[in-house]
Amino acid sequence: MADNVHLKPELPLVLSRYKDVLDLALKDAISDRRIFLYDMLRYCMGWSDAYGAPLETKKGKGIRPSLCLFTCDALGGDIEKALPAAVALELIHNFSLIHDEIQDSDEIRHHRPTLWNVWGIPKALVAGNVMRVLADKSMSTMPSDHSKLLTVSSSIVSEACLEMIEGQYMDISFEGGDGISVDQYMKMISHKTGALLRSSVHIGAVIGSRGGRVADIFREIGIKLGFMFQIRDDILGTWGETTSTGKPVGSDIRRKKNTLPIIHARETQPYQEEISELYSLEFIEDHHVDRVLDILDATKAGHYCQGLVEDYALEVSKDIQNIGFSKNSREEFQALVSFLVDRSF
Amino acid sequence: MADNVHLKPELPLVLSRYKDVLDLALKDAISDRRIFLYDMLRYCMGWSDAYGAPLETKKGKGIRPSLCLFTCDALGGDIEKALPAAVALELIHNFSLIHDEIQDSDEIRHHRPTLWNVWGIPKALVAGNVMRVLADKSMSTMPSDHSKLLTVSSSIVSEACLEMIEGQYMDISFEGGDGISVDQYMKMISHKTGALLRSSVHIGAVIGSRGGRVADIFREIGIKLGFMFQIRDDILGTWGETTSTGKPVGSDIRRKKNTLPIIHARETQPYQEEISELYSLEFIEDHHVDRVLDILDATKAGHYCQGLVEDYALEVSKDIQNIGFSKNSREEFQALVSFLVDRSF
Repeated sequence: MADNVHLKPELPLVLSRYKDVLDLALKDAISDRRIFLYDMLRYCMGWSDAYGAPLETKKGKGIRPSLCLFTCDALGGDIEKALPAAVALELIHNFSLIHDEIQDSDEIRHHRPTLWNVWGIPKALVAGNVMRVLADKSMSTMPSDHSKLLTVSSSIVSEACLEMIEGQYMDISFEGGDGISVDQYMKMISHKTGALLRSSVHIGAVIGSRGGRVADIFREIGIKLGFMFQIRDDILGTWGETTSTGKPVGSDIRRKKNTLPIIHARETQPYQEEISELYSLEFIEDHHVDRVLDILDATKAGHYCQGLVEDYALEVSKDIQNIGFSKNSREEFQALVSFLVDRSF
Repeated sequence: MADNVHLKPELPLVLSRYKDVLDLALKDAISDRRIFLYDMLRYCMGWSDAYGAPLETKKGKGIRPSLCLFTCDALGGDIEKALPAAVALELIHNFSLIHDEIQDSDEIRHHRPTLWNVWGIPKALVAGNVMRVLADKSMSTMPSDHSKLLTVSSSIVSEACLEMIEGQYMDISFEGGDGISVDQYMKMISHKTGALLRSSVHIGAVIGSRGGRVADIFREIGIKLGFMFQIRDDILGTWGETTSTGKPVGSDIRRKKNTLPIIHARETQPYQEEISELYSLEFIEDHHVDRVLDILDATKAGHYCQGLVEDYALEVSKDIQNIGFSKNSREEFQALVSFLVDRSF
């Protein structure tokens, strides 16, 4: 079992510094067009309840837009220029969540009923699509004094969005099959989760440094951050506590998700067949979850997954030695990397 | 009963001239990324069957991209410049069809099972989203020698897309209610169908004439074409033959759709209550359809709807007198307008 899933590290500065400016810009992007549809978007963002009443609760970590702004900022760029892209990335992330929840029949996210669960699939589908268009609209507000920056950023976002959706497709395709290999899994998450995270730092670097070698390095860093993020997510989905993750304990097992701990255990003899049998049950009950957790312990799946997260963290830490960050920015970025290694939410 | 629904007018030149160039560009846009997902898109476009085998069948009229290219062409513009936008409009149209079919539980389109009906909702949802991203990617290939044109065109497409989705939302919201007014209906279709059609001629005019008064006039023409198109669609959905429309006779009645004939009859005494009662039945059977058709006859709903289509056609015919089209282009456009008045498919 991964033994650090119940720590609650503090949110690093990189993820808190831009919260206010992002919140304002996001609220601006989800403008007050009059139809009720926009109340659904505000609910999704955690700003209001299902009846439209304002809420003070926090939601999400805003990791994508924060990474975008931080990277731009730390490279000496103007965060105002990166803000439309940062907003677009957060809206695209929410678009993907809304549609993902429909696809996976997820009823709860962050302790609240999901959109389709409150308003039905047709309206939730539409709400997701609106988020997506608002992202485009946000991109189109990028300062056009450097039209090439706009073109490059837009094409990075489009490509990331396409890969993300392709990743969702891979994920759906893999469901109910005989299980997938670690290689297939890594390819899937590099698309589904990795593409958008990668684009966050990539665009931040493009705008902050006007492209070139540094932007390429950040693209690579983004890929590694994506792996770290998703594998840690799998750990939390398997061993995390409800209070931290907003999901029931063992929730990924109950939903028969192809997470890395499971795939690792499936590749480990003599458990391959047993995991396959458990995952082919129509309903996974408590004692099945317990049995799967035992197998994961026996195959040291948590140790294996956390080891990968730490390996990527080490690589990223090396990558950022040589990209023109100030000492201060390096330390802040390092704190973010450490957070991604240990996070419990 | 609308008595001209069984004529089969020929496809006007405006809709056939650009078919080949559009087909090529569309096939190029739906590139050969390797995952099976793209076979779903090719199926949706009518290029292949559900097993991926190539098909020769035609699908759709390609009215949006054809209008875009024709308007640009007739105003003396270079259609190569408008092609990326034309392709984007057709992809966005297909994106909206795929998601609409999920929302409405439509099982058949153009005589073929709909995407979700073949592959299930999750995969169809993803396929729709990919169409949408490919539209963005197509827009980003617009020649950037006039970056303002790109910015303007992109924002026209985004706004149209947003209105279209808002229209879908209105449509869903109106379902199962006590019926809507003609005003509500007109607002809904001006968004759901009108926005994208409007943007087709608008962008064509922007690119063909570099903006200005002519582009504004075409925006207005586009709005009228949208009304003509959707109201004629409602007529065909009510009285059209399966062989022409690809939908069963009376299909919109069976699906309890809020079409203009129904809304008109509902606003006509003494049928208001009876229509409401019929539309609140769980299943509409053949004899119910017959009764609704009788009421539509008694209220002259077909005549009313076709009259509106013809009024808009007359207005458009006047609008195009004064926008710098050659005599030839005017005649071709007029033939298109006449087709939209009489079309049976």
